Amino acid sequence: MSSMTGNKIKISVFGQSHSKGIGIVIDGLPAGKKIDIEKVLKLMDRRAPGKNSLSTQRKESDTPEILSGLVNGVTCGAPLSMVIYNENQHSADYNNIIDMPRPSHADFSANVRYNGFNDVSGGGHFSGRLTAPLCFAGAICMQILEDMGIEIQAHIQKIKNVYDDKIDYVNIGKWNTAEKVFPVINDEKGKLMIAEIEKARGNGDSVGGVIECAVTGVKAGYGDPMFNGVENQLAKNIFGIPAVKGIEFGNGFDATDLYGSENNDDFCIVDGEIKTTTNNSGGINGGITNGMPIVFRTAIKPTPSIFKEQNSVSLKSKTEEKLQIKGRHDPCIVQRAVPVVEAVTAITLLDVLS
Amino acid sequence: MSSMTGNKIKISVFGQSHSKGIGIVIDGLPAGKKIDIEKVLKLMDRRAPGKNSLSTQRKESDTPEILSGLVNGVTCGAPLSMVIYNENQHSADYNNIIDMPRPSHADFSANVRYNGFNDVSGGGHFSGRLTAPLCFAGAICMQILEDMGIEIQAHIQKIKNVYDDKIDYVNIGKWNTAEKVFPVINDEKGKLMIAEIEKARGNGDSVGGVIECAVTGVKAGYGDPMFNGVENQLAKNIFGIPAVKGIEFGNGFDATDLYGSENNDDFCIVDGEIKTTTNNSGGINGGITNGMPIVFRTAIKPTPSIFKEQNSVSLKSKTEEKLQIKGRHDPCIVQRAVPVVEAVTAITLLDVLS
Amino acid sequence: MSSMTGNKIKISVFGQSHSKGIGIVIDGLPAGKKIDIEKVLKLMDRRAPGKNSLSTQRKESDTPEILSGLVNGVTCGAPLSMVIYNENQHSADYNNIIDMPRPSHADFSANVRYNGFNDVSGGGHFSGRLTAPLCFAGAICMQILEDMGIEIQAHIQKIKNVYDDKIDYVNIGKWNTAEKVFPVINDEKGKLMIAEIEKARGNGDSVGGVIECAVTGVKAGYGDPMFNGVENQLAKNIFGIPAVKGIEFGNGFDATDLYGSENNDDFCIVDGEIKTTTNNSGGINGGITNGMPIVFRTAIKPTPSIFKEQNSVSLKSKTEEKLQIKGRHDPCIVQRAVPVVEAVTAITLLDVLS
Amino acid sequence: MSSMTGNKIKISVFGQSHSKGIGIVIDGLPAGKKIDIEKVLKLMDRRAPGKNSLSTQRKESDTPEILSGLVNGVTCGAPLSMVIYNENQHSADYNNIIDMPRPSHADFSANVRYNGFNDVSGGGHFSGRLTAPLCFAGAICMQILEDMGIEIQAHIQKIKNVYDDKIDYVNIGKWNTAEKVFPVINDEKGKLMIAEIEKARGNGDSVGGVIECAVTGVKAGYGDPMFNGVENQLAKNIFGIPAVKGIEFGNGFDATDLYGSENNDDFCIVDGEIKTTTNNSGGINGGITNGMPIVFRTAIKPTPSIFKEQNSVSLKSKTEEKLQIKGRHDPCIVQRAVPVVEAVTAITLLDVLS
Repeated sequence: MSSMTGNKIKISVFGQSHSKGIGIVIDGLPAGKKIDIEKVLKLMDRRAPGKNSLSTQRKESDTPEILSGLVNGVTCGAPLSMVIYNENQHSADYNNIIDMPRPSHADFSANVRYNGFNDVSGGGHFSGRLTAPLCFAGAICMQILEDMGIEIQAHIQKIKNVYDDKIDYVNIGKWNTAEKVFPVINDEKGKLMIAEIEKARGNGDSVGGVIECAVTGVKAGYGDPMFNGVENQLAKNIFGIPAVKGIEFGNGFDATDLYGSENNDDFCIVDGEIKTTTNNSGGINGGITNGMPIVFRTAIKPTPSIFKEQNSVSLKSKTEEKLQIKGRHDPCIVQRAVPVVEAVTAITLLDVLS
Repeated sequence: MSSMTGNKIKISVFGQSHSKGIGIVIDGLPAGKKIDIEKVLKLMDRRAPGKNSLSTQRKESDTPEILSGLVNGVTCGAPLSMVIYNENQHSADYNNIIDMPRPSHADFSANVRYNGFNDVSGGGHFSGRLTAPLCFAGAICMQILEDMGIEIQAHIQKIKNVYDDKIDYVNIGKWNTAEKVFPVINDEKGKLMIAEIEKARGNGDSVGGVIECAVTGVKAGYGDPMFNGVENQLAKNIFGIPAVKGIEFGNGFDATDLYGSENNDDFCIVDGEIKTTTNNSGGINGGITNGMPIVFRTAIKPTPSIFKEQNSVSLKSKTEEKLQIKGRHDPCIVQRAVPVVEAVTAITLLDVLS
Repeated sequence: MSSMTGNKIKISVFGQSHSKGIGIVIDGLPAGKKIDIEKVLKLMDRRAPGKNSLSTQRKESDTPEILSGLVNGVTCGAPLSMVIYNENQHSADYNNIIDMPRPSHADFSANVRYNGFNDVSGGGHFSGRLTAPLCFAGAICMQILEDMGIEIQAHIQKIKNVYDDKIDYVNIGKWNTAEKVFPVINDEKGKLMIAEIEKARGNGDSVGGVIECAVTGVKAGYGDPMFNGVENQLAKNIFGIPAVKGIEFGNGFDATDLYGSENNDDFCIVDGEIKTTTNNSGGINGGITNGMPIVFRTAIKPTPSIFKEQNSVSLKSKTEEKLQIKGRHDPCIVQRAVPVVEAVTAITLLDVLS
Repeated sequence: MSSMTGNKIKISVFGQSHSKGIGIVIDGLPAGKKIDIEKVLKLMDRRAPGKNSLSTQRKESDTPEILSGLVNGVTCGAPLSMVIYNENQHSADYNNIIDMPRPSHADFSANVRYNGFNDVSGGGHFSGRLTAPLCFAGAICMQILEDMGIEIQAHIQKIKNVYDDKIDYVNIGKWNTAEKVFPVINDEKGKLMIAEIEKARGNGDSVGGVIECAVTGVKAGYGDPMFNGVENQLAKNIFGIPAVKGIEFGNGFDATDLYGSENNDDFCIVDGEIKTTTNNSGGINGGITNGMPIVFRTAIKPTPSIFKEQNSVSLKSKTEEKLQIKGRHDPCIVQRAVPVVEAVTAITLLDVLS
């Protein structure tokens, strides 16, 4: 009851940053779906580090080995499982943090939760590396959703105080962010964001940002009321991505600046179908889809691993200590989290729609 | 799989706005806990409408009848169940919306979800009235948490663009909002908020706002990683409250304006215990509590029921129509949602801590 | 996590034998199903006591009050909830067992589980009375299954060493047991069974028996492998009926007397459809239905409440004591458990087929 | 929602008989438990085939590769995952059954369930081979239970009509069946059983049997009422073992031959503790443990794979056909299922006790 989620499509994520392997089991996939592994690898590659100066130089081979669930590349109804063997680990980099928790990481809370037996190395099970299996599973779910005419796109809405273009919640269009190394709609804004990241990196510091995700093609009438609505399930799962600290749907927090008459989405008839003229609801009312695009944003805090010296404590001696984090770290993980948000969205929606 | 939630403490909510009754079952409560019904009624009363011009004049008796689970006022380990009989219903007020969905309500999405068989009257199962049983259950869970030294408080952080006092995430203090008709920390700010609500009401319009909740006394080490962390579970359940469109923990979305060095919570030793000097994490790292106060905010959109004429459609004829909502509605539900947020937080945390 | 079960159709049972009320919430029913309340009451009445000398003379009005989930007698998609108010309680009859657990009842194990705070009166939440809400829910599920062409029948297969007619697992036929006060296929055998029950009653003793249940009309291909198969789910739920101590499918334990060549069900073609010539598998292979009738038997132990003096202990003084059970008790509950088995089967199968 | 089970300790089983690998994820294990891998391998080895003429000559290396969850052999709180790579597969042996389902196997029901896309080879996900991961997980859970003073033992109670010694449900004693190739209490009876198996094998036929399992050291007060009792959970999970067709606790079906006065377990005081003089309840009342040994039996049908020619059908042409099963099969799997029953019992009880 922790690294498993889902009602009809269930996933079970396993692995630690420096364990022998990491992976995932997907239970409940429909049988008879041909899986395009190239597309799976492509989504995983968008998350992979080591591409440029913005992300850690650590190399991850990240080659998923599928253990079960496919027969000749087609889902057979049995759980689809996958392992990625870990390589290129620098566990020694973590020797000093065994006793000295990194600020705003899970080191301390996990130490208490697991009586000091948690795997500290590389962040253990709390490492961002565990999002690689999520991308794998998400890419598979995405292909099944695409067959239903559903498309999931995400972009960086902001890095620090640089914003990408504002999107139209009613007409989403094609963002092509899956094709870009830096997934923004407006590449000029992207350059400014990159400049912010470079600046933070130069200072041994880090920045965060907001990822906006839009889903088109989901018909009205999916989701269950109260605790099993689309918002509930997406929120539950999106908070499974490390560094996420907030989620909002449609207008979200900005709705609180508006009057009801401004925020309400009027109904209209478009080509004989019931639509809304605006989409401040983000495609969901009462937890149930209304046929408009699903739109949500999620806040990614600045990477807690920074090279600046920080104040920590010794867990053993309970004394205050100075901490200098070693290893290879991203000054910003937002760009790498974009495909992860898409993947978790795909996993969640396939569950909701199954 | 909808109006039930929880892992160890499970709740099952039932009822429609105008059905014979509404209620809740709480399954898994520890045995031997004396329940103070007066305190339960007090929390429920904070949610009840009809107190002043800010909320609907509809009277709800809201007297919970406990059917099981208590023996001489003490929990006996069997499911604790409760019903509130509905009275004072004006179902006729909803005749026109059977065919004409109210903008930004669940009328349309539920119509599709349930093939037109959903209970439209009063919003049916999607009505804010269903939060009364949540308050009942939350008040019971809160008493058990209080015995563990845990305190849950919430206040209106903002109504439209009027903000309550900024709180100190490290030292929460006593807000006394549970004693106030309008639950703000700074009553002067409260007056300005009320003025905003009155203005909206005068225009047949509505406003929303943000509720901030703080929980003190939760020790470090609670919650499970990935999908069963405290953030995941709170988010899943808080989105079960109607009109919620966003949730953020600690600094939340504002963390994206900061550098890692600004947002990270340095560790320190206070009275021999490991604490953090700031609490931008909102008391949770990696889904697990770190011993600092849990702090989160949730966005409540402007009440979708407004008296201004709106654009709707006829479900039957698929033509565009003008809609005039009748009945009694709140120009703002934020003040009434404050105890509901506290209640859902209590239900969730008792589950996490059990 | 106890009195709730189900994946897609979930139920939540509440109440104690002598609490104000008992009832059930059914979450996830499809919308738009017209419910015939007369048929619901008829199934509940088959379980009701007080009909003749075979069962307790205690009168239960057992009138279910539906609180929500129906609009004009049609399911609306919201949780369907029901309460039965308890009357005619003789709590005083249970005064002596508060300190002296009844052999083979849950009194002692529940006392330990709930630290002495469990509701002892009438057996509390462990009372057979809690099967009334199961009958209510089962009768509703059964109607929906009937619309799919599915029929559930059960009969008393044996009372002590008197057996009803052996059934043909391939051709089930009509048993009409739902129309009989004593639900056997062969009424002559029924008379012999009744004689056994009367004999036990005369001696202040009790007897048990086996209930056999058959389900026709379920197509092949339902159920999930390993832990979510039809056998798993039926077993999990059937053991929720008090006094059940065993369950077996198809040939069950008797299969162990046979060779594989005798026990295997050969395939054949009947009217162009794939069937089996025998049905020793009881309609299920690998947890998944094969299109043949589902057949299973469940063992109901002799009613533990007997009037003969028994050896018990004082929980307080930990001394051995003689116990004389008071009150009104059934010398045999098998006949009353027959509709309960049908009901739990209906609840489980509607979940599996949803 | 199929090959996953558990509430607090959850497992996720994956793999097909001839997929690249099979394995399991165990989520929720307590941190800080040292795991003795030798003991794990020993339990797995008891299940392994190829030991003698009684079981298939197929060699399984069955070397579990642990991917995560342990740090220096100690559980770290993260999901413990394991893979066994499949080798020595004779998929060609299954060519003829792709179109011709084997009687009383899951071939046909799975074909319908998965629209013909199920992995037929070696039985796919329905193969008895999938019990190897269960043994792995069970052996780990067993070690944790042993630290709590809990011991799980199983023996073959019968093969066809040869019975092992009757056990005393109150005083279980040491069976040493874990040390025996043929796990019976009385080796003389074991020889007679083996003779029955050899006879079946000689005829190209198979036999089944009953496995009896006893658990000592579980204190009173574990389990939840109705649907989450120890019986419910054990039954749900034990039916996850292929070929299981029945389960009974304590006296089980035999209780229906007795009077209540014979079947009831009188209470007594032993060394100041409340015990029962008999244990016909099998250690469980109302789903909750009563402190006496947990005793249950499970029926294993004769292996459906036999070498005698059988009647099957062509799925494609829907014609009746003769089927000759090829490959290597066990004339009896009961002896190999004994450690599997112990393993699933350990998994279930650790969940119940967590």
